[in-house]
Amino acid sequence: MNAYYSQEAHGPFELVSIGEIALEEGGAIPDCRLAVATHGSLNAARDNAILVTTWYSGTSKIMEQVYIGAGRALDPSKYFIICVNQIGNGLSTSPHNSEGALAGPGFPKVRIGDDVRAQHKLLTETFKLDRLALVVGGSMGAQQTYEWAVRYPDFVKRAAPIAGTAKNTEHDSLFTETLVEAIETDPGFRGGRYETPADVAAGLKRHAKLWTVMGWSTDFFRAGKHRAMGFDSLPAFVDNFMTGYFAPMDPNDLLAMAWKWQRGDVSRNTNGDLAAALGRVKAKTFVMPISTDMFFRVDDCEVEQKLIPGSELRPLASIDGHLGLFGTDPQMLAQLDANLRELLATAVG
Amino acid sequence: MNAYYSQEAHGPFELVSIGEIALEEGGAIPDCRLAVATHGSLNAARDNAILVTTWYSGTSKIMEQVYIGAGRALDPSKYFIICVNQIGNGLSTSPHNSEGALAGPGFPKVRIGDDVRAQHKLLTETFKLDRLALVVGGSMGAQQTYEWAVRYPDFVKRAAPIAGTAKNTEHDSLFTETLVEAIETDPGFRGGRYETPADVAAGLKRHAKLWTVMGWSTDFFRAGKHRAMGFDSLPAFVDNFMTGYFAPMDPNDLLAMAWKWQRGDVSRNTNGDLAAALGRVKAKTFVMPISTDMFFRVDDCEVEQKLIPGSELRPLASIDGHLGLFGTDPQMLAQLDANLRELLATAVG
Repeated sequence: MNAYYSQEAHGPFELVSIGEIALEEGGAIPDCRLAVATHGSLNAARDNAILVTTWYSGTSKIMEQVYIGAGRALDPSKYFIICVNQIGNGLSTSPHNSEGALAGPGFPKVRIGDDVRAQHKLLTETFKLDRLALVVGGSMGAQQTYEWAVRYPDFVKRAAPIAGTAKNTEHDSLFTETLVEAIETDPGFRGGRYETPADVAAGLKRHAKLWTVMGWSTDFFRAGKHRAMGFDSLPAFVDNFMTGYFAPMDPNDLLAMAWKWQRGDVSRNTNGDLAAALGRVKAKTFVMPISTDMFFRVDDCEVEQKLIPGSELRPLASIDGHLGLFGTDPQMLAQLDANLRELLATAVG
Repeated sequence: MNAYYSQEAHGPFELVSIGEIALEEGGAIPDCRLAVATHGSLNAARDNAILVTTWYSGTSKIMEQVYIGAGRALDPSKYFIICVNQIGNGLSTSPHNSEGALAGPGFPKVRIGDDVRAQHKLLTETFKLDRLALVVGGSMGAQQTYEWAVRYPDFVKRAAPIAGTAKNTEHDSLFTETLVEAIETDPGFRGGRYETPADVAAGLKRHAKLWTVMGWSTDFFRAGKHRAMGFDSLPAFVDNFMTGYFAPMDPNDLLAMAWKWQRGDVSRNTNGDLAAALGRVKAKTFVMPISTDMFFRVDDCEVEQKLIPGSELRPLASIDGHLGLFGTDPQMLAQLDANLRELLATAVG
C-alpha cells in the first residue's frame, strides 16, 4: 500500500462499492469501489445535488480545499456536494490498490465513459438521485462533466467544464504521451513492476518538468509567481513543488489516468459526430477555459462551446495557466465562483 | 562522419578557419572552422553586407531556401548575404566532426557570445567588413542577433531578431532541459559515446515529440495543417516529418546547441543588467515574435523590445507557432519580408 492515498492525506472519504462495472474496452472491474466525499445535505426535493469530478493526479481533497466551502459558490449549506474520485486516481479502485490480475500493470483500460457510468450507478443506486443541479470539474474533471451532459442529458441540469475539452485534441494527446513516456522510460519502472514510486523517482521528476513547462505559463514565471510561492529559482520550484507533488504518487495509477485522458471523446456516443454529441446536451452549460492554458486553449474550447445549445463561453482570466486549477490565483477563483453562482441561479427545466 | 552534414545535403558552403577561439567557459577551440555560405556581392562602399545566423538544428541551407532569393527582402542582387553556421550545428566545428579531446562528449561548452566573437573575427578578418547593414536570424539565430547588437553596437546598423529572446527565460531553459533529457536518458546515448545517431533513435524520437508539442501550436493542428502537409494523422506527422527531421542529426551536436541555447543572455555583457545591455543597442531593431509561439511568446519579447532604444515590436501573425520559422506559412513570410524591406530602407548612422 501507498500511504499517500490514505484517509489521513485525502480524507475523510467513504469507499462505496458499486459492484461490477463492464468496461468499454472489454473486461470488467468486478468490485468497483468509488471513493466519495460529501458536503452538505440533500434537500427534501432531492434537487440540490452537485457532482464534483476529479482531474489527473487530483483527488476529492483538493476539490474540497480549493472549491468548496461556506461563502463559496459550492456552499455545503445550500447544496449536497458529492465529490467522486475517478477510477485509477489512487483512492477509488486503481492499479496500486487492486489485487490479483487487476493489480499494477494488469489493470484494465478504463475510459471516461466507464467513470461516468460508474458515477451514474452510484448516484442513482446509492444516493437515489434522478437529477443533478450541477456537474462541475476541471481538466479530466471537465472531460467527465461533458460526458455526463452528453450521456445523461435529462439528469444533468447544469454543467461547468473548466479547463478541459469534450473531445481531446491530437495535440493534447501527444503532450500526454510525453508524460507517459517520461515515466515508462525510467529503467526503475520495469514495465510497471516497480516496488515503490521511489524506484521511478527519475521518471516522475521528468514528468514533473513537463508539467512545469506546459502546466503554468510563461507569464506566470515572468511575473515570478514561483518565487512568490517561496522558491528562489525555477529549478527549486521544479525540485520541491512540482517533483514533490508527483513523487509519492503511484506511477501505474498515473498511467491509468493518462490513458483515459488521452482518449476522452464524447463523440464516441454518436459514432464520431461531435456536433451530434454536444447537440444532445440539455444542461445549461458555462464553458470555462483558463486564458493562458497552454493545452486546453480558449480557442479550442470555444469550438466545442459553440456546438452546445444555449451554452456560454466564460473564459477565466489568469496568468497561472492550466494549473491555476490548483487555486494559486484568488482572482481567478473569484471569477469562477461568480460564474458558478450565476449558473446555479439560472432556472432550468 | 555523418553524411547528413555534407555539401550534398547542406551546401554549397565553405569551411573557413578563423584560428583559435578562447571560450567564455574556459578552454578553447584551437582551429575553429565556420561553415559559411554567401549570396550576392559586396558593393564598393562595403556597406551592403547582411549576416544571417542559424537556429537549433538548422543550417545555412534552410535560411537560403526559406528566406533568401530574388524578389525576397534578402535579395542577393542587392545585398551581400553571409550565412554563418553556429558552432556545434554540424557544419561548423562541432562535437561530431572534432577529433581528439574535443570529439563527441569531450566538446567544450560554447556560448552565444563565443559564436558572435567568432563571427566578428570572420567578418572583420576574412571579409574585411566594418559594418553590417543587417543581422537577422530566428530562435537561436535571434539570440546571436541580439548578442551582436549589444556587443558590437557600432558594427550592426540594423537588427531583426525573429522568434527569440535576448535573455532566455527560465521557462524556456526548462523546456530545453526536457529536450536534453529526452536524448540523454536513451540507454543508446551511452554518455555521448554512441556509434551513430541510430543508436539514439528512441531518444531522438522523444525529443521530436516534445518539439511537436511546443514547436507548432494547437491552432496549427486544429486547422489540420499537418494533414495539409500530407500526413493523415498526428502520429504519422510525428513519425515521418518531425522524427524524420531530427533522426539523422548528431545527438552531441544537438546537445552542444541546447546547452548554448539555454544560457543565451546578453546581460552577461553588463554584469547581469539586461536594461543596460539592451540600452547599448544602436541598431535600428525590429523585434519579430510569432503570434502563436509557445515558448518565445510575444509578451516575453515585448518586455525586451521596450528596453531597446528606437526599436519596434513587429509580431508576425501566424498559427504555425515557433516552427513557422520553417517557412510553412507563406503569409507569415510575406509579413516578415515587408518588415525586413522597411527596416532595410530605414536610414541609419
